[in-house]
Amino acid sequence: MDELKSTQSSALFTDFYELTMAQGYFKENINHKVVFDMFFRKNPFNGGFSVLCGTQTLLDKLLDFKFSDEDIEYLRSQNIFCNEFLDYLKSFKFSGDIYMIDEGSVVFPDEPLLRIHANLIEAQIIEGLVLNIINFQSLIATKTARIWLASQFAPIMEFGLRRAQGYDGAMSATRAAYVGGSSGTSNTLAGQVYDIPVMGTMAHSWIMSFPSELEAFRAYAKIYPQNSVFLIDTYDTLKSGVKNAIIAGGELVEKGYNFGVRLDSGDTSYLSKEVRRELDKAGFSKATISVSNELTEDIISALINSKSPIDSWGVGTHMVTGGNESSFTGVYKLCSKFDKQKNTMVSVMKFSDNPHKTTNPGIKNVYRLYDENGMSLADILALEDELIEPNKEQVLHHPMLDYRQFTCKPARVEALLKIQLKDGKRVHPKLSSALELAKSRQNLAEQLAKFDESYKRILNPHVYKVSISKALKELKVKFVEQNIK
Amino acid sequence: MDELKSTQSSALFTDFYELTMAQGYFKENINHKVVFDMFFRKNPFNGGFSVLCGTQTLLDKLLDFKFSDEDIEYLRSQNIFCNEFLDYLKSFKFSGDIYMIDEGSVVFPDEPLLRIHANLIEAQIIEGLVLNIINFQSLIATKTARIWLASQFAPIMEFGLRRAQGYDGAMSATRAAYVGGSSGTSNTLAGQVYDIPVMGTMAHSWIMSFPSELEAFRAYAKIYPQNSVFLIDTYDTLKSGVKNAIIAGGELVEKGYNFGVRLDSGDTSYLSKEVRRELDKAGFSKATISVSNELTEDIISALINSKSPIDSWGVGTHMVTGGNESSFTGVYKLCSKFDKQKNTMVSVMKFSDNPHKTTNPGIKNVYRLYDENGMSLADILALEDELIEPNKEQVLHHPMLDYRQFTCKPARVEALLKIQLKDGKRVHPKLSSALELAKSRQNLAEQLAKFDESYKRILNPHVYKVSISKALKELKVKFVEQNIK
Repeated sequence: MDELKSTQSSALFTDFYELTMAQGYFKENINHKVVFDMFFRKNPFNGGFSVLCGTQTLLDKLLDFKFSDEDIEYLRSQNIFCNEFLDYLKSFKFSGDIYMIDEGSVVFPDEPLLRIHANLIEAQIIEGLVLNIINFQSLIATKTARIWLASQFAPIMEFGLRRAQGYDGAMSATRAAYVGGSSGTSNTLAGQVYDIPVMGTMAHSWIMSFPSELEAFRAYAKIYPQNSVFLIDTYDTLKSGVKNAIIAGGELVEKGYNFGVRLDSGDTSYLSKEVRRELDKAGFSKATISVSNELTEDIISALINSKSPIDSWGVGTHMVTGGNESSFTGVYKLCSKFDKQKNTMVSVMKFSDNPHKTTNPGIKNVYRLYDENGMSLADILALEDELIEPNKEQVLHHPMLDYRQFTCKPARVEALLKIQLKDGKRVHPKLSSALELAKSRQNLAEQLAKFDESYKRILNPHVYKVSISKALKELKVKFVEQNIK
Repeated sequence: MDELKSTQSSALFTDFYELTMAQGYFKENINHKVVFDMFFRKNPFNGGFSVLCGTQTLLDKLLDFKFSDEDIEYLRSQNIFCNEFLDYLKSFKFSGDIYMIDEGSVVFPDEPLLRIHANLIEAQIIEGLVLNIINFQSLIATKTARIWLASQFAPIMEFGLRRAQGYDGAMSATRAAYVGGSSGTSNTLAGQVYDIPVMGTMAHSWIMSFPSELEAFRAYAKIYPQNSVFLIDTYDTLKSGVKNAIIAGGELVEKGYNFGVRLDSGDTSYLSKEVRRELDKAGFSKATISVSNELTEDIISALINSKSPIDSWGVGTHMVTGGNESSFTGVYKLCSKFDKQKNTMVSVMKFSDNPHKTTNPGIKNVYRLYDENGMSLADILALEDELIEPNKEQVLHHPMLDYRQFTCKPARVEALLKIQLKDGKRVHPKLSSALELAKSRQNLAEQLAKFDESYKRILNPHVYKVSISKALKELKVKFVEQNIK
């Protein structure tokens, strides 16, 4: 089997048990309509918010998700699938409806980010694809938004290709980082595929390929006069790097260009201040300082707090992998199913020995409540047929703790889940990558502005309220009582 | 630009600065022969060893790494590349030599895992590809080996697709986890592509799709009598799950089959013991218990230490992403280059304001020294022309601390770096995926057996010695003295 196969859109990209269960449903003649919620359980990075990303990638992949003849033969070779079921898979195509919150939105734990309406078999076979794409891109968009906030919205260059988790770990991370606030990427292929600006400076090996540091800087300046950022830490940052950068950069300035320097090792706070001083002393107050080297939002915050004069940031590893938190806790849970006897959809709730794994039953939407200044007050999960209206007092219940509730009178109410796929087809025409990304990136910037600083704090943020409506509360109580019996 | 493009083997999968530097070298007529080492700086997970993985994937990708006409047009559209250089890229093909340590080998910080001999431009353009593939697969193979050791070599099922870092994050992780000791995967596509056993049990949604838990178990048992592992925590593990599993499983046993149960929530240690007791009491001492739910090597160790009666482990998130350590610290550094004036290759050493970022100069091999029982004693980095012989006393120098050295007389010496690519062509014919993986997996098992337990401990392992030879030591000292001047 060709390894390049791994690069196509095969519906075999699913957990094997989905297929064995699907054959079970097929044989038992169980393929009723179901509704699944995709939601997550905890903001990553001990943060106060998350950023939804990957919904557009998911739509593209879903529309292309099918079993080839080769895939069917592979399944046949496992000797547990019957011909009738394999014939069914041959014509498999996702034909359900998907509601999504807009890509780039600020989202919170327990909120359905996507709601999938389909028959049981289709809903299950796409589960792995949905979770794989949304979990990863949301993790990276969230991390990048934190880094962008920490930098006080300075330019962030994404340099993660060499430390990313594989090929698509680099490609998808570049896409998600751009939604999350990066200004561009070093990944040339992602630049081409997603139409994201590509950028970069020079490597230590460039310096080491010339007889001297100064010759290396001059050679670069000659070829890329508009775009020279000298890497100054190959030999000795202060004794040699910055001095040679001032000579080569000075020659550029005489010709009417600017220049910059990059620090990639050592004590960044100390060195950036010393380098700034040297540059200013030489008359190059416009020369820029970029910094790289295992940056995180915490390190960037500390450098900003110590007034380090840094103009832009090159971030790799931590941004494209999540660093010490490498996964997003998204799950995919049944919330409603068709009941044959009752001939209607009925709500479903999953209990668990871990109380926080107990789900919110029923077909729900997420409503964001705004105050008169347009700032987000709280989100509320409500059942499909409930009306959450502005300028009316709303009672908001804590999703788990009985004794906590509060009321508020929002000036504006926004339903976040919107239909994007109807009967397996896009509701809106596909945009170009560039437009799609610009829209999601813009959405994030606008949404971030509508949240109080306390929710966006890097360390110990305030907890944004995600509540449930009275009707949803009552439905949960009913299930709990039934379960106790 | 089609998103499916992201799935092909484009040489645009490189950091943009490699291409701008490459044009610089091209214009300056600098394209001498160079040697780069790929090595890493720190064992992940505070562990005592790492596992090299991804070398075979890299060979496949490298042989296919080229710029299409479309790629060239994309670069042209950036308006900084000249026609002559773009013509050069059009015919780009890696034509150098690569030495590699065998896939599945136990490796240590500072050892060259790969040594790349090529002209400067080719060596630089492939840097990102080399690091991306080797870093990720080595991270995952190392993590899995730790999990496998912690489980005392029990069956490990890899269940990571839904939490992996994107599409290839799942595919490559499945491959690397298999090299690292997993028994199979839930990822059906990886099963097909790499010929790895696929496996799985059932989801909570299966149980919830039937009127009762017992009906759900019976339906599964009817379809998959040889392979029924009942998920028992959907409603209540002890009050309902295990009781229904005993009924449905008992019916299977009567027909001559066995069965198992899976726990996915709650206190695993307590529940596994209670469930074992219930199964035994009912006469099903052969029924197996599998456990899943955010497992790590630490949790598995603790469960084994508390004598939890668990037969197999389903591991997802932490195994396929690395969990709290999501990247491998592999780097790619120049160690030698052709000197035109001297008309020979000369050694190169990189200094840094971070002392641990200072490199080992020269063209080196890694030698593993064994005692008379075949156990690994230490590794030594030596220059290409040195002879490290068995049954002779070897002086081993600490790579950084002057005052530390020791001697040993190895019974056997093994050179770890072997040529795999010569003039851009495979030295050995490509094996099938299945054979290639079996070989790497076997290599790891054999190598692990040759290391003392103290190096393989999960917590606070002993540090295995990686030393440098006398000649390498002297070369480093010479560079340091020159640098001080």
